[in-house]
Amino acid sequence: MTDPARAGIPEDGRIPRYYRAKRQILALCKTLGEGVALPSERQLCTRLGVARATLRQAVLQLVVEGWVDSRQGSGSFVVGRRKIAQHLGTADGPGPDALTGRTWTTFERRRAGCELAQELRIHRNDSVIHLECVRGSGNEILAVESAFIPAKRFPGFNHAPVGNRSLHDELRTRFGVTFGGADQGTETAHVSPREADLLGTLPALPALVVHRTSWDALGEPFERVRTLYRGDRLTLVNRLGPVERRPEHEQAENRSSCS
Amino acid sequence: MTDPARAGIPEDGRIPRYYRAKRQILALCKTLGEGVALPSERQLCTRLGVARATLRQAVLQLVVEGWVDSRQGSGSFVVGRRKIAQHLGTADGPGPDALTGRTWTTFERRRAGCELAQELRIHRNDSVIHLECVRGSGNEILAVESAFIPAKRFPGFNHAPVGNRSLHDELRTRFGVTFGGADQGTETAHVSPREADLLGTLPALPALVVHRTSWDALGEPFERVRTLYRGDRLTLVNRLGPVERRPEHEQAENRSSCS
Repeated sequence: MTDPARAGIPEDGRIPRYYRAKRQILALCKTLGEGVALPSERQLCTRLGVARATLRQAVLQLVVEGWVDSRQGSGSFVVGRRKIAQHLGTADGPGPDALTGRTWTTFERRRAGCELAQELRIHRNDSVIHLECVRGSGNEILAVESAFIPAKRFPGFNHAPVGNRSLHDELRTRFGVTFGGADQGTETAHVSPREADLLGTLPALPALVVHRTSWDALGEPFERVRTLYRGDRLTLVNRLGPVERRPEHEQAENRSSCS
Repeated sequence: MTDPARAGIPEDGRIPRYYRAKRQILALCKTLGEGVALPSERQLCTRLGVARATLRQAVLQLVVEGWVDSRQGSGSFVVGRRKIAQHLGTADGPGPDALTGRTWTTFERRRAGCELAQELRIHRNDSVIHLECVRGSGNEILAVESAFIPAKRFPGFNHAPVGNRSLHDELRTRFGVTFGGADQGTETAHVSPREADLLGTLPALPALVVHRTSWDALGEPFERVRTLYRGDRLTLVNRLGPVERRPEHEQAENRSSCS
């Protein structure tokens, strides 16, 4: 992809060792091609002339950025999969969901506390229901999601939705609550130990976190949701502006030289 | 903020040392309050019973997540500033820009290459103009932005815009090109050494990267842009759905207990 900020080289031309190693391994990945194993740590250290800690720093960044898949005991591989595009939603609503798989892992009641109470416009001593699920596509687990809803608005809601069913479907069919709109914020955060367990990733892996407060058709807030997406596997996409992009020209010549 | 995935504690209840230290320091930050200095590394290590490397891992995560500001030589401080909300844009266009400050750092011509050529629908041997700037708010530098535009479409464009002027303003007034729409993708990446220099941050700090391909009023692509935002300072926000949120109730009682 388009070289970031003059390929990362500082004005003084001095390049940290880990960064030089990272660029070299990335070039090697492109030569080797998808799914191919990288040389062993020892071989790479010798070849690139760096210490093991330096090599690990370089490889970890490539894992986080989705270029390398590193599995304990079986080495590192060039990633062949493209990142999955998850829609951030538009004025029409949440948009198509790339993560159709869902397994509910938690259903519990707790005291709202100050911050949730403000978002949901309830009292801080009111109960909220906390529902947690892991979400994915195919066999891959790609996100962990926690939703908090005011308990008094959903009487008789005593267990998580059955199977793959979404919370929005459940709230609409059982309680007549429909989605009217939401404010979202996207940030970076680290995968906590529990989230790493649920996702099957390294702890402390950088991730994309989306916080959302949704309201119903009358504009009344009914949920606060935190979704943590694997940063190495997802791109959050959105479209701007009133004009459609023109359909693509024939570019067979360029394409063949790029693949 | 709403506790992530059961406060990060794995099912087996075993908590890594760095994560326990991170939670403890976060609690300490909330007690100390904004702008107050944290105890020294040595004091914190003794108090929490952890090694220095463990402590540094915990503090680095808190820096990245925007809770702690760590300055070389002068210790660590509880962050008082809220994160800045930058709009991701809507169907109406890019939305208000929170980063009004801009300093141009690069203007150069180069060969497009395959990936840029595909995005901009030009030949891979065509020239593109690469413009790089740092962007910020007040005295803070918060983002580094690289834009690539097809050279042949902008004849006589030989230097970066003057002063604080945006590229879109320049292209509209000098070449009559107006923004019609764009596709955006948001990902995580690491700050490269050059970007760290430009931003004044630690290298390898996780960041939010937004890639955008914009087209004009006829739907023809005219720029490919990569913006790297400091992950510890920005939230990328967007609004969903056709319904407005209802104006907030009086909540003086809750508010006073939360601050």
